[in-house]
Amino acid sequence: MDKNSFERVDMSAPDYQGTFAEISRCTKLCFKINHTEPYTDESRALIDSLFENPLDGSNITPPMQIDMGKNMKIGKNVFINHGLTCMARGGIEIEDGVMIGPNASLLTANHELDNHMVLLCGKIHIKKNVWIGANAMILPGVTVGENSVVAGGAVVTKDVEPNTVVGGSPAKVLKRL
Amino acid sequence: MDKNSFERVDMSAPDYQGTFAEISRCTKLCFKINHTEPYTDESRALIDSLFENPLDGSNITPPMQIDMGKNMKIGKNVFINHGLTCMARGGIEIEDGVMIGPNASLLTANHELDNHMVLLCGKIHIKKNVWIGANAMILPGVTVGENSVVAGGAVVTKDVEPNTVVGGSPAKVLKRL
Amino acid sequence: MDKNSFERVDMSAPDYQGTFAEISRCTKLCFKINHTEPYTDESRALIDSLFENPLDGSNITPPMQIDMGKNMKIGKNVFINHGLTCMARGGIEIEDGVMIGPNASLLTANHELDNHMVLLCGKIHIKKNVWIGANAMILPGVTVGENSVVAGGAVVTKDVEPNTVVGGSPAKVLKRL
Repeated sequence: MDKNSFERVDMSAPDYQGTFAEISRCTKLCFKINHTEPYTDESRALIDSLFENPLDGSNITPPMQIDMGKNMKIGKNVFINHGLTCMARGGIEIEDGVMIGPNASLLTANHELDNHMVLLCGKIHIKKNVWIGANAMILPGVTVGENSVVAGGAVVTKDVEPNTVVGGSPAKVLKRL
Repeated sequence: MDKNSFERVDMSAPDYQGTFAEISRCTKLCFKINHTEPYTDESRALIDSLFENPLDGSNITPPMQIDMGKNMKIGKNVFINHGLTCMARGGIEIEDGVMIGPNASLLTANHELDNHMVLLCGKIHIKKNVWIGANAMILPGVTVGENSVVAGGAVVTKDVEPNTVVGGSPAKVLKRL
Repeated sequence: MDKNSFERVDMSAPDYQGTFAEISRCTKLCFKINHTEPYTDESRALIDSLFENPLDGSNITPPMQIDMGKNMKIGKNVFINHGLTCMARGGIEIEDGVMIGPNASLLTANHELDNHMVLLCGKIHIKKNVWIGANAMILPGVTVGENSVVAGGAVVTKDVEPNTVVGGSPAKVLKRL
């Protein structure tokens, strides 16, 4: 995604209140999720209520920190391990069959360098059957192509082509599949 | 450890049920540990019940996420700080006197690149008096030799010789001791 | 900060008891904070009691792991997101207007390489209006200069000049502002 097309979000403007309300809702809801026994009906119902639609054959293991569930779209048969952090102001789409290891971060917002009260937000798009390793970070505006692999601990600053393994900080291509 | 000798574990096969049962047990137990006041007798008893044998002069600070405690062997006078993640299907052995900083990850399982339902598992072996820094990740099949140091944030993809400092992503030798 | 001026702290010496008492106090207090609904008066009062003085127009989102709150000084209008880890034996000063992303670590203590029971502690100083990205680590003795930016996932091993963007593991200069 072209960084010039990132959305500018001014956290000090009155219309930020809608974003702030969703962040408050999700912060309190994640607190509840993280204090409810995992793999129970109660836990499942709380997790489902983070999003516009309940998860369909997918699962996220607590604890998790998701700030704006309404801005996320999660496909079928997605599995996400514990410790997920999502900052979703820019939108996050995770397609079918994606696997995400423990303590990964999907971050759609940067601060503007000369005014930290302004966010620069770009959508993260994780395509079908991607595997994201433990502790990996996906940065604003990044698309990860189908069947690709993000190595553990990678910091992904730009788009990843399909069928590609990337790793390192910042992430570079390690292999074509 | 030679990657060709990694164990292939098919998560869709019927005999994965044993693994799944241990993961469920430990996930629920870690939830309890992480919601019990630390440094109390109750906390200590719960932590001990993760493993085949109670800890002996060793300590792990909650919160922690350990998926298969029965596959781990922890020596004497080991100290592990908060935020530990262990994926232990391939086996984890931590020898005497090891120190592990906060938010470290010991990960013994990768996914097979062309079939994510298959895990490729290799034992992690942390030898005597090793110090693993904060946020470091040890990947499947890795042995860290005696007295070595893994710098904070390092991603360790291959064996570390004894008396060696490694760091970076992927980790490289920084110094001989 | 010159590494030769780091304070040597022997964890096996009798005078380590004062440090240990503060670590116990903060570990138990953080446990309480992390189990109290966020953004409530109760949560706020608990967080304030970590430090010598209550926060003034600043905020830290739980969960957090702070080991020695009395060794920290936090300015006005500081915002720190969830998942903060502080090991503060060497002292941590965070000036006005600093923003810190999720899961960052401020670590003031290393172990001496040939005797892990000895800590080598150096103060961390984060100057005005710095932005520290998600999952970044600041290591012992580091000063980050005014208006600088530490990219997500960076491992900062030495001082950062003012008005500078650093990133990577170990962190290098990416840009002057």
